[in-house]
Amino acid sequence: MRKRRFDPRSRVAAGRGHNARPQRSRWSNTPRDHEGPVLLYGWHSVKAAIENPARRFHRLLATENALRRLSEEKLKLPLEPKVVRPEAIAAEVGSEAVHQGLLAEADALPSPAIEDVVPEGVLLVLDQITDPHNVGAILRTAAAFGVTAIVTTARHRPEATGVLAKAASGALEYVPLVTVPNLARALNALKDKNVMVVGLDSTGDTALTAVPLSDPVALVLGAEGKGLRQLTRTTCDYVARLELPGRIKSLNVSNATALALYVAATRIGRIA
Amino acid sequence: MRKRRFDPRSRVAAGRGHNARPQRSRWSNTPRDHEGPVLLYGWHSVKAAIENPARRFHRLLATENALRRLSEEKLKLPLEPKVVRPEAIAAEVGSEAVHQGLLAEADALPSPAIEDVVPEGVLLVLDQITDPHNVGAILRTAAAFGVTAIVTTARHRPEATGVLAKAASGALEYVPLVTVPNLARALNALKDKNVMVVGLDSTGDTALTAVPLSDPVALVLGAEGKGLRQLTRTTCDYVARLELPGRIKSLNVSNATALALYVAATRIGRIA
Repeated sequence: MRKRRFDPRSRVAAGRGHNARPQRSRWSNTPRDHEGPVLLYGWHSVKAAIENPARRFHRLLATENALRRLSEEKLKLPLEPKVVRPEAIAAEVGSEAVHQGLLAEADALPSPAIEDVVPEGVLLVLDQITDPHNVGAILRTAAAFGVTAIVTTARHRPEATGVLAKAASGALEYVPLVTVPNLARALNALKDKNVMVVGLDSTGDTALTAVPLSDPVALVLGAEGKGLRQLTRTTCDYVARLELPGRIKSLNVSNATALALYVAATRIGRIA
Repeated sequence: MRKRRFDPRSRVAAGRGHNARPQRSRWSNTPRDHEGPVLLYGWHSVKAAIENPARRFHRLLATENALRRLSEEKLKLPLEPKVVRPEAIAAEVGSEAVHQGLLAEADALPSPAIEDVVPEGVLLVLDQITDPHNVGAILRTAAAFGVTAIVTTARHRPEATGVLAKAASGALEYVPLVTVPNLARALNALKDKNVMVVGLDSTGDTALTAVPLSDPVALVLGAEGKGLRQLTRTTCDYVARLELPGRIKSLNVSNATALALYVAATRIGRIA
């Protein structure tokens, strides 16, 4: 059960040693092949991972203060933590990262198959959104709205580690992340399960509030600037816009997602 | 009219030369004394500044491509641009900044006095939110909702330049930024003008949707982690929370602001 799938130190041999980019985290935003272990830092991210029985840990580094806090909260640790000074963590995650004395290295969580997603409530689909801050904030807000699952493309997405995990504030442990090779096919799989698929785009024909939203519903968001890809767009049941009265008509993608989730959750009666 | 208030190069003499931190922008997130010129980069930020007659420019750098695009959009330039290669802009704003071939150095816009704020619609008040990405996204969303003004403390706020300006995507030119020495006093000045003052906090007593919101209304947001300061909180007419059905109860501050703006703008009839 606790058998390691690989040696976490093997990436050092592969040329991604700890000192390759000492000033910034090497985990921050480089799309990789999504096979390696992930780094989690910061109180919420690491605490939520510790509480998640599905996480397989390789290392846990904690400062004395952080260890005391973990102990006060009576958390059962999945492995013996190594007590370190804050600088040792900063050396791994970058000096600007707010690590709060905690760093864990763990396996990435397995991605459920799209066929296994339960068709209920609100689902979120991200069409090649790559900025890890934005995707992290989206995950956090998705967990706050109790989103059923988040679907992303296997390529052109940030890895669920580092900056993304920190911005997600523990949400990686709460919302299943489904990665699919082909997004249009995944949307069709959802439609086959009677999920209404609604794309969001500032050039959409209909206001989101005018779409007859029903449960279950999937909201599809594209990257800033690029928006939804053509095939994604044509696969949607509706392409809707957020009605904005001011001079700017396009929002930061995590802000747009928060509003779309609010509108959808309200309309289908998931929140008052 | 076009007289310069100061020599933009004077900061070099003051020890903030171009080569001080060559790998990152020195404009990114350091609270300064808010007196110096600001750097604007990226298409939306620079275009909106060019279109704003109140902006006083010191320098405009553009790549040939960007210059062609400006010319295609028939923008009247406030000064002769210097045509440069992209690397010249990257050397000033950092290699990771998405500058899109445009960089401007200009005076900061003047801050209106709190007494001059017109009491109508939705106002936004930021209580020591310092992250420039978040404040930039908040400005952008505020401009999208047609917010009347944004009030911040003069201290403990990021300067309206660089990363913040880029994330604001032109919103600096659309929403007046009022900086005040004392936030509680500013809130009282708004209350004297019959502005309802509503603080947002995940520990708030009332759901925001249950507050009898009326026009004009000011929404007050605090920094993540810290929340509203005690005096800010007690000065508010209501302290409300966003009702979130999921496992995470606290959002990224720009996401929280977007939702609060949406609820307020909807309730007071500014959007459908």
